[in-house]
Amino acid sequence: MAFVNENFLKLRSGFLFPEIARRVREYEQEHRGVSVIRLGIGDVTEPLPPAISAAMRAAVEDLTRRSSFRGYGPEQGYDFLREKIVEHDFHSRGCDIAIDEVVVSDGTKCDMANILDIFAPENRVAVTDPVYPVYVDTSVMAGYTGDPGETGEFEGIVYLPATPANDFCPDLPDEPVELIYLCYPNNPTGAVATRDTLQKWVDYAKSNGAIILYDAAYECFITDPGIPHSIYEVPGAREVAIEFRSYSKLAGFTGVRCAYCVIPKDLTGKTRDGSEVPVRDLWLRRHTTKFNGASYIAQRGAEAVYDPEGKRQAQTIIRHYMANARIIVDALMSLGLNAYGGVNAPYVWVKTPGEETSWDFFDRLLREAQVVTTPGAGFGSAGEGFVRISAFSSRENVEEAVHRLTTHLS
Amino acid sequence: MAFVNENFLKLRSGFLFPEIARRVREYEQEHRGVSVIRLGIGDVTEPLPPAISAAMRAAVEDLTRRSSFRGYGPEQGYDFLREKIVEHDFHSRGCDIAIDEVVVSDGTKCDMANILDIFAPENRVAVTDPVYPVYVDTSVMAGYTGDPGETGEFEGIVYLPATPANDFCPDLPDEPVELIYLCYPNNPTGAVATRDTLQKWVDYAKSNGAIILYDAAYECFITDPGIPHSIYEVPGAREVAIEFRSYSKLAGFTGVRCAYCVIPKDLTGKTRDGSEVPVRDLWLRRHTTKFNGASYIAQRGAEAVYDPEGKRQAQTIIRHYMANARIIVDALMSLGLNAYGGVNAPYVWVKTPGEETSWDFFDRLLREAQVVTTPGAGFGSAGEGFVRISAFSSRENVEEAVHRLTTHLS
Repeated sequence: MAFVNENFLKLRSGFLFPEIARRVREYEQEHRGVSVIRLGIGDVTEPLPPAISAAMRAAVEDLTRRSSFRGYGPEQGYDFLREKIVEHDFHSRGCDIAIDEVVVSDGTKCDMANILDIFAPENRVAVTDPVYPVYVDTSVMAGYTGDPGETGEFEGIVYLPATPANDFCPDLPDEPVELIYLCYPNNPTGAVATRDTLQKWVDYAKSNGAIILYDAAYECFITDPGIPHSIYEVPGAREVAIEFRSYSKLAGFTGVRCAYCVIPKDLTGKTRDGSEVPVRDLWLRRHTTKFNGASYIAQRGAEAVYDPEGKRQAQTIIRHYMANARIIVDALMSLGLNAYGGVNAPYVWVKTPGEETSWDFFDRLLREAQVVTTPGAGFGSAGEGFVRISAFSSRENVEEAVHRLTTHLS
Repeated sequence: MAFVNENFLKLRSGFLFPEIARRVREYEQEHRGVSVIRLGIGDVTEPLPPAISAAMRAAVEDLTRRSSFRGYGPEQGYDFLREKIVEHDFHSRGCDIAIDEVVVSDGTKCDMANILDIFAPENRVAVTDPVYPVYVDTSVMAGYTGDPGETGEFEGIVYLPATPANDFCPDLPDEPVELIYLCYPNNPTGAVATRDTLQKWVDYAKSNGAIILYDAAYECFITDPGIPHSIYEVPGAREVAIEFRSYSKLAGFTGVRCAYCVIPKDLTGKTRDGSEVPVRDLWLRRHTTKFNGASYIAQRGAEAVYDPEGKRQAQTIIRHYMANARIIVDALMSLGLNAYGGVNAPYVWVKTPGEETSWDFFDRLLREAQVVTTPGAGFGSAGEGFVRISAFSSRENVEEAVHRLTTHLS
């Protein structure tokens, strides 16, 4: 019989979102007719901007005519898209990134999961805590960890607590690590990294021979002009950082599927005998062998995000979500709760009152206000005592949710 | 410095198609104005059928309206598609496959590459020779092999020669293997597996505790009513086979991206201590953690493939390609060449005259007839002495190619 990858057996089955769904379903069954407002999940709710859907419709048309039909595209993405990316996302911000350092894909989750293919399980991994669970789960699957301990933390992963005391920007690890997952604007805390914070990480990575896996999927929500949108705005990052970007939140592409990552040619890893290997070449080999390109239609849609009309329309939707976030933060603050994030990120990270646990507060918000949140404990042990509230919703829903919270929590 | 996956360094860089492209480019530069006909690559050329593009256009519309907008879908695919798959691809052929055994993705190449994630490098791998290079390359990347030998064959992979003597259906391995890649209709030889051939493999897998990774991406080209379209038409396959299916060739989706695989719940692997683990559950864990669903637009397009009009239109295009194949085979036969395949597959596998090598024949066809083929040696050492000719082209191109071949080879 074929041997399975036993690392999978170290994982608990996907616990957080199925458990939330179960509790909500149970509540709805017990309370027929009550309208529950879902501010739990990190999925967009607003339809595609017209300029972007028009580009996608035109792309479908291209595929219906022999003269403009496209079959397999370049696995690393069409140049029409990569040129726009380089110009608008990097050159415009003073980042020196070349087209052949950009690799288009069908999603940041996929890229951040698959990137471990090109590294070796000997590497020690650091994550912030709380953290997007995919970084940890995929490290486990790829054999980078031992078994989970009693608290659910995996041997071999260095967890860096992100707390109000450090503004949710953890201290540097005090033991050696080779791969560091950072996500700013942060899911779930809504925190952002200043230029100094990023410089500190880049300097650490350079001194310690580490690589930063920089998840910038929420970059579009940055409103503060002083906050870097790309880690490459910081000197030295080209030598130590891989950046992951997505159209999911920027253009409502969670169901369309398009993203990209940047691997500068300066970035190297090493073999056991100490020779240096360009990481980008390994990723291109992986990508061209194991992937067949993002959908042409999605890439044409992504291209339209950079046109003036597409950009303007996408910005309107982003402003809508950020105004939602503002409404949520303000309401929570006036209730005397500590609410973080929501200014440069679509997530609000709320301290539970007193000693109340994440799940208890989650249950109370569901039962008293019929508002679904995400228990912070689901993102790691340092997330205990918090819930995440998402700004992805209609204004109507957010206003009603805020009204209910104000009524029931004050 | 972070350690890289050194298995990647065992691979030669992607050699075959870049080398073909280089030689064609060189020839075109030396012979300006000469029209080269490309029958080398396995990519479709005909535009999307109207019923299918209409469904995709409607899907784009869905995404432009709040009421019908879809964000993240289920990672394993929408039920609207999985229901059609089960009914039309399996139940209609007497195969007992349930919806929760079908997992939708963005491509068969991706699925067949990623499937090794859930197995362990202790498994020995068997491939037919010649073979689609992705099976071998991804086995190397995942650490299932040693270094390549002088002939380019990797230690730890069992190569099973497919030759005219065995009708391109290799004998069973005479050493133990746990994972067996089979592809029927076959790329590159165009051979098909009869029911007896598949039964032989299923029986072997059952007796030897092996799993068959069955690539049925070319299933739609089967014209002979006696040939199974699915390995599950053979008794016992549910316990030993994973099947991979694609819309790429069936519906012209090479640029759209949609595929699926089937993992029956009866299929198990084992841990080192001998406990049995359901393979489907591991794949679902992988798929939901490392993938975020195929594009909604692509899934709506795939759904339309099963509607009567979509099916009829897709069949028309398939008949077009198969008529191309017939024209190519007939012409080669009348030239006295041995041509295989082309009846249940869009590939014609041609023996080179006498002792001529694959690359020499390739060069001769390019220089004398301006027709691009694929040298068989690029698919493995048993492919030496053959070239692959693809039927994916317009009728005009195929007729012109055949005219040139007839003029220059007779």
